Amino acid sequence: MAIACPKLQLRFLGLARSLPSLARQPLPCLLPARSSPITVLRAVRRTAKARTLSAVKDDQSLSSIITELEQEQEEDETAAGEDVTRRLPERWSEIHGRDDWAGLLDPMDPLLRSELIRYGEFAQACYDSFDYDPFSRYCGSCKYNRRRFFSSLGLEGIGYEVTRYLYATSNINLPNFFTKSRAGAKIWSQRANWMGYVAVSDDETTARLGRRDIVVAWRGTVTRLEWIADLMDFLRPVNSVGIPCPDPSVKVESGFAELYTDKDPTCRFCKYSAREQLLTEVRKLVELHSRAGEEVSISVTGHSLGSALAMLSAYDIAEMGLNVGEGGERVATTVFSFSGPRVGNGHFKERFEGLGIKAIRVVNVHDTVPKVPGILFNERVPAFLRRLAEALPWSYSHIGVELPLDHRRSPFLKETVDPSCFHNLEAHLHLLDGYHGKGHRFVLASGRDPALVNKACDFLKEHHMVPPFWRQDENKGMSRAHDGRWVQTDRQEVDDHPEDTQHHVQRLGLADDHHH
Amino acid sequence: MAIACPKLQLRFLGLARSLPSLARQPLPCLLPARSSPITVLRAVRRTAKARTLSAVKDDQSLSSIITELEQEQEEDETAAGEDVTRRLPERWSEIHGRDDWAGLLDPMDPLLRSELIRYGEFAQACYDSFDYDPFSRYCGSCKYNRRRFFSSLGLEGIGYEVTRYLYATSNINLPNFFTKSRAGAKIWSQRANWMGYVAVSDDETTARLGRRDIVVAWRGTVTRLEWIADLMDFLRPVNSVGIPCPDPSVKVESGFAELYTDKDPTCRFCKYSAREQLLTEVRKLVELHSRAGEEVSISVTGHSLGSALAMLSAYDIAEMGLNVGEGGERVATTVFSFSGPRVGNGHFKERFEGLGIKAIRVVNVHDTVPKVPGILFNERVPAFLRRLAEALPWSYSHIGVELPLDHRRSPFLKETVDPSCFHNLEAHLHLLDGYHGKGHRFVLASGRDPALVNKACDFLKEHHMVPPFWRQDENKGMSRAHDGRWVQTDRQEVDDHPEDTQHHVQRLGLADDHHH
Repeated sequence: MAIACPKLQLRFLGLARSLPSLARQPLPCLLPARSSPITVLRAVRRTAKARTLSAVKDDQSLSSIITELEQEQEEDETAAGEDVTRRLPERWSEIHGRDDWAGLLDPMDPLLRSELIRYGEFAQACYDSFDYDPFSRYCGSCKYNRRRFFSSLGLEGIGYEVTRYLYATSNINLPNFFTKSRAGAKIWSQRANWMGYVAVSDDETTARLGRRDIVVAWRGTVTRLEWIADLMDFLRPVNSVGIPCPDPSVKVESGFAELYTDKDPTCRFCKYSAREQLLTEVRKLVELHSRAGEEVSISVTGHSLGSALAMLSAYDIAEMGLNVGEGGERVATTVFSFSGPRVGNGHFKERFEGLGIKAIRVVNVHDTVPKVPGILFNERVPAFLRRLAEALPWSYSHIGVELPLDHRRSPFLKETVDPSCFHNLEAHLHLLDGYHGKGHRFVLASGRDPALVNKACDFLKEHHMVPPFWRQDENKGMSRAHDGRWVQTDRQEVDDHPEDTQHHVQRLGLADDHHH
Repeated sequence: MAIACPKLQLRFLGLARSLPSLARQPLPCLLPARSSPITVLRAVRRTAKARTLSAVKDDQSLSSIITELEQEQEEDETAAGEDVTRRLPERWSEIHGRDDWAGLLDPMDPLLRSELIRYGEFAQACYDSFDYDPFSRYCGSCKYNRRRFFSSLGLEGIGYEVTRYLYATSNINLPNFFTKSRAGAKIWSQRANWMGYVAVSDDETTARLGRRDIVVAWRGTVTRLEWIADLMDFLRPVNSVGIPCPDPSVKVESGFAELYTDKDPTCRFCKYSAREQLLTEVRKLVELHSRAGEEVSISVTGHSLGSALAMLSAYDIAEMGLNVGEGGERVATTVFSFSGPRVGNGHFKERFEGLGIKAIRVVNVHDTVPKVPGILFNERVPAFLRRLAEALPWSYSHIGVELPLDHRRSPFLKETVDPSCFHNLEAHLHLLDGYHGKGHRFVLASGRDPALVNKACDFLKEHHMVPPFWRQDENKGMSRAHDGRWVQTDRQEVDDHPEDTQHHVQRLGLADDHHH
């Protein structure tokens, strides 16, 4: 960093110690004198890295005041932090909702906080990897190959492997949700949208977690909230879309149900429904690992519309009896929901909870999406939709335990009226990191980088100098071919379905499932 | 490329031969059965690459129909093309305007066309390397180190080396031109903007060109045209800003004159004026190479406001007598201007041409900028400015030879009312490539990639599937530091001035130049 003008140099002299870096404004309200132990798995690894950094003189300007404070804290608390980390195997069933998170939310349990962030990052990965560009031939797909999914996102250390991608057909009644290419016929698929993935913990992580963890992550939508206007549809019985619930009064929003169960036999990617793709994969993984004698858990996560799919699919897994191991043991199934809308009616809620599935819903109290469907829309929704909503019977019900956050508590965030900021998943993860309980001061627990908030929105105060909407591909994915021309890079392969899918669909009794 | 649906596959079967690639829509109106020989230096090199490409089966889908046609053409004409390329040493003084381009414009001379594109690309490099991001600490600077300037832009083969960067102070009366950071004090410089560079041909390129070529490239503005509203200022005598012209009636637009001559002693980057930076560098280079017995040329180029600086600085070089070699021989000085505004009055034009400087002005007839200052502004300019313009005496005059192009002749470009498209430099280079003379059909001569047009605008027809504004940095220049945080990358060094600048300023008699 070169200081250009003598006057500037003078101005900085007095700040040299308190302003070790010009890279970022000093961050307010960071860490208490004696804060909660750091419990994320990666925090321990980061300590070593942070120490290495401080030894590198040239990189001093890269570090900001937050890093320095974090180091001091970690040096104080590494021992305690490692203790808490080691307690994950013994505490995970509690963290996964065994007691409905009683006593863990206020004050906020540090291990629960870090686990919520960890599962939220699986949902965030769906956004960071999705191809939104209408000028891309792969618009609506995942930008990365399944086998390199996490490493392409810079998440090499996450300790999970993606075993399957999930697709849905866009032929359903949610026109404002699907991303479509302008390329007309010349694209990877005209009918499919990539909707998420199934991943499973590797051996090392399994040892650390105390169980083999199957993660299901569903994609939602980052900025375009228009899809919620499509939801004023109707509730339909879950058994009308093939989920084997004996009670026809158990109903869910039909748009979610269709997204989850529709398919298109003419399309390579959505010839199986998202439901069939998910259930066959979960069945295979539970069988494989419980047969090996391992304890298995199923953790389903999603943000926004992805949360609705998480609720519905976790329920389906239990209704189908797939949350049972080879020896008849129950496989704990938990939904980590972020900014999710309501999914079904009161009977759905009762059935869901009666099956023993646990759900925790992280919301920002200023976000509109968790308030739909079922209430007056806010002022940004056209009046005719609001009248329509009023005319419908009130019959939607939230599920599980809510963890309400408030973005106004974070000193990093600016005043805005943009509802897509309130709804942003990265903002929720930032709010989680600073949350210690009702009435507690906002203090970052892990020091999770606040810069991440501005990946896909404009929410951080300007003086932090983090560009808004900074996550973008170099040259929108255009690169130079051998002949010097600028072209969209061809992809070697877009993952579709394992060859044994049809076999497993039949095993699950779904083969004759022609409910549409 | 995976075709997802059987129906799509069927649809493509009939097109398999005529549509070898899905990467780009077949491009209309490309190459005539027997087109002009390709004369750009790089075209010969590209022939070899294109052939390599056609042998690589996997990359077949990367090539588009344009590449295939080009290959065929090049195979026909390589011999002829090399002949024309070899004629550059004997033809360059003609190409650089010795005869005021008489007989070279209609029909368009192929060697002149390729040389105009080549010099235009030096001006384009100023845009591609400029840091526009108001959230960057380096906003207003060049993104790349001087020594790696061309290679950072993917122009390794250009055959020139940048010897100096040029800066100007933003303390002048063109508020809508300068790019400023929101970082307040924490930036590379609060007062300077990077304005371009001086480069010189390497030995190999010098041998090919037939002389040592000094290129001066001035940055203009790509999309923000508001700066032209600032120009309704006044003409001032060039000798009032220190240019030693004996005639006080020789006047130029004062905004350009100030931009060129102002400095700020408190700022490391603009303690010398752009004028001082340029003149000292040109003097050094001319001395060095003419002393070695080489023929030397000075080629000054710029787009938009950069064109005004090109005109003014080329004139200054001649007025200062720097276009003379060690043995007293004249150093040919030529301005390659793109979309340039008028610079001075009629006396300036006469003085400019009387000093033997040559200027060719490439314009798009639909572009507003070459019509200012000095005429009614268009409908996008506020009415009060228009009235002001009417009240001023008409006294501006264009210089040199105009080459008028018309973007409506290109079948690649769509209908738009966006004036920044009409003004775009890449669009001009595209139009040049297809220009063969008045009334001639638009046919790409070198096959220069039309995708380049959309680098920083939205001008190509949508069916070509080139994203608009596609040139962008990965993550807006944010990258992960060692500690995992996302930060703006620190730059090792921002180039300022050679240590001997003061010495050369004194040699040129500029040291006591306190005209402000």
